[in-house]
Amino acid sequence: MLVGIDLGGTNIAIGLVDEKGKILKQDSTPTLGKRSADEIIDDMIALAEKVIYDANLSKDKIKGIGIGCPGAVDNKNGTIIFTENIPFSNYPISDRFKEYFDAPIHLENDANAAAYGEYIVNGDNAGVFVAVTLGTGVGGGIIIDGKIFKGSNGVGAEIGHIPLILGGIECGCGQKGCWESYASATALINQTKIAITKHPESLMNTIAQKSSVVNGRTAFDAAKQGDKSALEVVEKYIEYVAAGIVGIVNIFQPEKVVIGGGISKEGSYLIDPIIKFVRKYDYNQFFEPAKIEAAKLYNDAGIVGAAMAAKNFL
Amino acid sequence: MLVGIDLGGTNIAIGLVDEKGKILKQDSTPTLGKRSADEIIDDMIALAEKVIYDANLSKDKIKGIGIGCPGAVDNKNGTIIFTENIPFSNYPISDRFKEYFDAPIHLENDANAAAYGEYIVNGDNAGVFVAVTLGTGVGGGIIIDGKIFKGSNGVGAEIGHIPLILGGIECGCGQKGCWESYASATALINQTKIAITKHPESLMNTIAQKSSVVNGRTAFDAAKQGDKSALEVVEKYIEYVAAGIVGIVNIFQPEKVVIGGGISKEGSYLIDPIIKFVRKYDYNQFFEPAKIEAAKLYNDAGIVGAAMAAKNFL
Repeated sequence: MLVGIDLGGTNIAIGLVDEKGKILKQDSTPTLGKRSADEIIDDMIALAEKVIYDANLSKDKIKGIGIGCPGAVDNKNGTIIFTENIPFSNYPISDRFKEYFDAPIHLENDANAAAYGEYIVNGDNAGVFVAVTLGTGVGGGIIIDGKIFKGSNGVGAEIGHIPLILGGIECGCGQKGCWESYASATALINQTKIAITKHPESLMNTIAQKSSVVNGRTAFDAAKQGDKSALEVVEKYIEYVAAGIVGIVNIFQPEKVVIGGGISKEGSYLIDPIIKFVRKYDYNQFFEPAKIEAAKLYNDAGIVGAAMAAKNFL
Repeated sequence: MLVGIDLGGTNIAIGLVDEKGKILKQDSTPTLGKRSADEIIDDMIALAEKVIYDANLSKDKIKGIGIGCPGAVDNKNGTIIFTENIPFSNYPISDRFKEYFDAPIHLENDANAAAYGEYIVNGDNAGVFVAVTLGTGVGGGIIIDGKIFKGSNGVGAEIGHIPLILGGIECGCGQKGCWESYASATALINQTKIAITKHPESLMNTIAQKSSVVNGRTAFDAAKQGDKSALEVVEKYIEYVAAGIVGIVNIFQPEKVVIGGGISKEGSYLIDPIIKFVRKYDYNQFFEPAKIEAAKLYNDAGIVGAAMAAKNFL
C-alpha cells in the first residue's frame, strides 16, 4: 500500500493508493499557503495519518510515500528547493516525514507526478507519452520508456514555456509570448474578459453576470449555444492550445498526448478540433500519428502519480 | 573500422571512421538529386568503395556502415521512406548496399546522425544533449542517455517545427510561424534581403553587390563593421534563434546545446548573445544551466555520427 500526496497552492490532497494505482481512500485539507512551511507540513502529516487510520491500516503497512510539489524538488536530498506560491525554500520535507513514517519518501514535481499518474492509468504503455495540463499555467510531463523525463538537472519538461508568439503577452517567467500565456485556463479567462468588454451583447456577458464570475467555462458554454463572439474566443483558444501541441508532437512524436486541467472536461468539443489541427500540421505525415485524448484522472492524477512514482523507487 | 555516409541534397560525403569517431579518410561527390534513386546509390556505393580502397583497406575490414539521409528512414527494414529533395520513396537502400558489402548497414536521419557525431566528439558525455543546426531549415538532434531520441515512431526531434510566432511567416511544413521560418540560414538571408531593400544605403548592400550574392554572412559581416541596419538584422535574428533555444532548454534542460550550420562559424559573436538571452529566460534559475557552444565538426558531423551510430548497433 502506498500514500500519494498532491501538495497544491489551494489544497493538500492525500490518497491511499494500491500497487496498481487505484485510490482506495482520499481526503484533503486547505493548504493555506501563507502559513509557515512547518505548519503546512504538520497538517500534511496529520492528514496522511488520518487517511491511513480511516482505512483501518497501521502505518507499517505503507510501503512508500510519494509527494508531488509545485516548483523545483530535489528527491535525492529530500528537499523542496523552491515553490512559487507556498513558502518553501530548501525545505527538508523528507526528513520531516521521516519523523512520523518509516516508509521511503519520494518527491516529484507536481506536474510530473500528475503526468505519471495519467500514464499509469491511461498511457497504453506508450514508449513516449506527454501530458499537457491547462490550468493556472500550462504544465506538462513527459514519460519516456516508462520513466518521468526531467532533463539533466531535474527541472525540465516546462512545456508551457516554449514560445508561441514571441514578443506577445508577457509571461510570469519574464519572457514575452510563452505558450502558457495563451493556452492556460488563466489565459482563456483573460481572452473571455477582453471579448466581453468588446462585445457586451455577447451571451458570455449574460453567463458571467449570472454566475458573477468569468471562468474557463464561460466562453465554451456560450459558444455551444451559438454565440458568435464566444465561438471566436473558443476557436482562437483552441488554435493556441493546438499549435503548442504541434510543437510538442514534432519534438516528441509521442504515442499518446493527454490533455488535462478543468478545461479538458469540455471533452470532444475541445479535443476534436485540436486533433484536426495537430494532424494537419504534424511534421509526421507517414507514420501512425499521436493519439490525443482528454485526461481521465482529473484531480486525482497527482495523488496516483506521486504514489506510483514512489513505488518505482522501492 | 567504420564507414560513415552523409547523403545531402547537394553532396554525398563519405568517410572512413575509426572506433573513436576520428575520420581517417574522406571524399565526396555531387548528389545530382534530379537523377534516379538507383543512379545516386550506384555513385554512393562506388565512392564508399573508393574511400576504402584509397585507405589501402579491404572491404572485409569494415565492421559497419552508417548512412545519414534527409527525411524519414526506417532502419529496421533498411529503407528510406521519403526524402524531400532527392527521389527516394520506400527505397531499399540497405539491400542495395548489401549487394556490395558484408558489413551491417545502419540508417539514420541526417540531422540525428549529425547531432550524434557532435555528441560523440563534443558531448562531454552529457545525460541530455541537443544539437541545433541552422541551415536551409532548423534541424536538430536530441541525445538522451547516450541514445538518439527519435520519438515513438522514429521521426521526432523536428525541433525546427515548434512555433515561434504563430500566424507568422509560412513554413514549408504548411504551418505559419515555425521557428525554422525565422531562425534558419534561409530565413536570415530573407531578413537580410528585406533590410537591404529598405536600407539600400546599408553596408549589407555594398557587401552583397561585391560578392553578387546575399548569404548568411552578409548581415554579420556588415554588423561587425558597425552598420546600423545590419546590426538590427543580426540582433533580431539572434533573438529568433535564442527564443527557440529557450523553449528547447525549458523542455529538455540539457547539459549541453551545440549550435551548428554555417552561421555557427560566427563563433562568440553569435553564441555569446544567445547565451545571455537563454540564461535570462531559462525557467531554470536554480540549477546549473545548459552549456551553449558552437558545434565543432561542421560538415563532418554527419559522417562521424552515421558511422558511430552504426557502431552502436554492432
